[in-house]
Amino acid sequence: MASEKSDRVVCKAGQRIFHEGEAGDRAYLVVSGQLEVSKSMDGGETTVLALIGRGEIVGEMALINNAPRTATVRATTDSELLIVSPESFQRKLSAMEPVTQHLIKKFVNIIRDQNIELSRLRKVVR
Amino acid sequence: MASEKSDRVVCKAGQRIFHEGEAGDRAYLVVSGQLEVSKSMDGGETTVLALIGRGEIVGEMALINNAPRTATVRATTDSELLIVSPESFQRKLSAMEPVTQHLIKKFVNIIRDQNIELSRLRKVVR
Repeated sequence: MASEKSDRVVCKAGQRIFHEGEAGDRAYLVVSGQLEVSKSMDGGETTVLALIGRGEIVGEMALINNAPRTATVRATTDSELLIVSPESFQRKLSAMEPVTQHLIKKFVNIIRDQNIELSRLRKVVR
Repeated sequence: MASEKSDRVVCKAGQRIFHEGEAGDRAYLVVSGQLEVSKSMDGGETTVLALIGRGEIVGEMALINNAPRTATVRATTDSELLIVSPESFQRKLSAMEPVTQHLIKKFVNIIRDQNIELSRLRKVVR
C-alpha cells in the first residue's frame, strides 16, 4: 500500500489505507496529513463520511473485533500514520492501573455487544 | 445509601447501590463483596442480569452519557466499592499518552453514537 517502516506508514495523496469489506487488523493515528473516510452506497455511488486530520484515529474497530472494515480510507494529502496494532493496544492496556484497565475492557465489550445488537436490529428493520 | 468515605462506599448485604431510571453520576469498582444487577421486565417481575464480583465495574455508562441507569444494582453480601467519578475518569484519561487518550475518547464516542442508533432502531422495531 505505501512505504512502511516499523510502526509508521508514509503514504502519498490519493493512496488507499484500507478498503471497505477488507479484514482489519490495525488502527491508524494521523501524525501528519489528511485522510478521507468514504463508503459506497446502495446505488453504487460513493459518499465521503469524514475527513480525518492530525491526532485523529481511524480503523479502531479492528482493535475490538475482527469484522470487515465498514468504510474505505484514503489519503487526500501526503500523510504519515502511526500504526496501532491489537498487540500494542494490549501492551498499553496492561501498563494502565487496574481500574482504568477494567474500564477500557468494559467499554470494548459494550461496543462489541452493541454492535451485535445493532446488526440484529438492522436486519429486522430492513 | 450506605456509609461513604472519600472515594469508597461500604454497603451491607441487601443495600441498593442505584436504581433503574435514576440519574447516574458515577461508576463503581467492586473492591470486595458481590453485587447483583437486575431489571424490571414488562410484566412487572424482576430479572437478575448479572452478578458482579471483585475487580469488576458497574454503572460505567454514567462516565459516558447522562442517560438514566438502565438497571438496578444491589449488594448481595457486605461489600466495599471504589467510586469512579467522571472527574477521576477524566484525570486518568489526561494522564495517559496521547494515542491511548484519543483511542479511549473515540471508544466513548462510538458507544454514545451506537446508543443513539440503538434507541432509534428499537423505537422502529417496537
